Amino acid sequence: MTASDYLEFAYRTVVAAGAATLPHFRVPIAVDDKGGAGYDPVTAADRDAEAVIRAAIAKAYPGHGSRGEEHGFERGSSRYTWVIDPVDGTRSFITGQLHWGMLVALHDGERVVCGVSHQPYVGETFLAAAGGPARFRHAGTERILATRRCASIGDAILATTSPDLFDTPRRAEAFARVRSRVRLTRFGGDCYAYCLLAMGLIDVVIESGLHAWDIQALIPIIEGAGGVVTSWDGGNCEEGGELLACGDPALAPAVRELLADRRSSSGPPSR
Amino acid sequence: MTASDYLEFAYRTVVAAGAATLPHFRVPIAVDDKGGAGYDPVTAADRDAEAVIRAAIAKAYPGHGSRGEEHGFERGSSRYTWVIDPVDGTRSFITGQLHWGMLVALHDGERVVCGVSHQPYVGETFLAAAGGPARFRHAGTERILATRRCASIGDAILATTSPDLFDTPRRAEAFARVRSRVRLTRFGGDCYAYCLLAMGLIDVVIESGLHAWDIQALIPIIEGAGGVVTSWDGGNCEEGGELLACGDPALAPAVRELLADRRSSSGPPSR
Repeated sequence: MTASDYLEFAYRTVVAAGAATLPHFRVPIAVDDKGGAGYDPVTAADRDAEAVIRAAIAKAYPGHGSRGEEHGFERGSSRYTWVIDPVDGTRSFITGQLHWGMLVALHDGERVVCGVSHQPYVGETFLAAAGGPARFRHAGTERILATRRCASIGDAILATTSPDLFDTPRRAEAFARVRSRVRLTRFGGDCYAYCLLAMGLIDVVIESGLHAWDIQALIPIIEGAGGVVTSWDGGNCEEGGELLACGDPALAPAVRELLADRRSSSGPPSR
Repeated sequence: MTASDYLEFAYRTVVAAGAATLPHFRVPIAVDDKGGAGYDPVTAADRDAEAVIRAAIAKAYPGHGSRGEEHGFERGSSRYTWVIDPVDGTRSFITGQLHWGMLVALHDGERVVCGVSHQPYVGETFLAAAGGPARFRHAGTERILATRRCASIGDAILATTSPDLFDTPRRAEAFARVRSRVRLTRFGGDCYAYCLLAMGLIDVVIESGLHAWDIQALIPIIEGAGGVVTSWDGGNCEEGGELLACGDPALAPAVRELLADRRSSSGPPSR
């Protein structure tokens, strides 16, 4: 099996799981259904999608492990583990918004082999195998993705999911330092923000509090489009945590400096 | 002509304008193209869409006026004025996100007669004539929209476009008071947040700094679905300004009190 074979399996699997998820999307739920034995549409969406994905993995690759938000870390008999977030952007999903996605990655014990991010309602898929190009499939077409150059932080468009992600003073101040220097900040991204960075429409994504299943599928997509994704300090980000993605790798050092507040760095102070 | 006739004209017109807008969507633009004689994709998208809309109005209703962000207020010889925002959510549009829309309303000098909000990439339209039901068209289907009940502010999902909308301490504190009381806050909405409120998936939308063309098309959609939209103090919101939409009209007084900081109101203090 090549990385490309695994990628196409992941693509077919996540598209099938998307079809299982859509019946739960935009189904109005009375607020008084919550908080007890009431119907929980998010859990049902997650459960149905994950059941489809797990069944497909078990059938195709019985020796592989799986890891996700809903069912923990089940190691397989091989070095391969599928890393799954059946609905990334639960808050987006339950409010009927469109920037959520379904994430599936394959990890070989050393690195991410391939990743898929799928938006079933819009019918869009972003996908890449490690070392290969990032691709976008929509309405029966496919194209190669490329990030755009961004010479300076003052030209950059920054995206994140919510200001609530920055839940400590250190994190909030770090994000505020970058935000004060960019051209524009967009909220409400979830996985979709990283995909639009790969598409060359967003320059920087900064988040914190992420899990492995929130980011692994996106790593080959970002890198395959020419971008870079690391922890805030430039380290490996496969386990989530504090995430920084830059479409232009040349921009990353300046953003890392702002996040770390290395005041010896050149440039004017934050506005 | 009935309101329904005008509504269907607006629907056909905005769908045609959407087709003129999509070639400008997600076209990667180098950042160094900005700030001078460079190509400006947002202006081109606005211009092309507005040209289609204006040409259609001039042909069908030569006595009608038009009012929008791009071409000001041109009064007609009749009492009717079309109120147009060819791309509501410019920042969403230029970053490739999906929560922007094209807004067209007809005002008869006393009130909004009908309104349409269209998302051409996803192919969704929300529309209503004053006094009639709000409807949703997508993929060749149509359904009636209804807001949901929301008994208390603690159950509510709040949406707004960006924290940057609240650009004075009074506005920022008013928004923060409501935000501290709700179940969940979502950013990144633009016109789409009001449409999802009409769909029964969001309970409260709070914004400020809006123009007439940002809100008029949405008024009959919100009201037709059973919701209410006013200024923060409960007044007429046709001219924009500080906007409050509630899916459940019974929730509106409590939200207005929080926005006004009437500390004599009942209930626990803001967390």
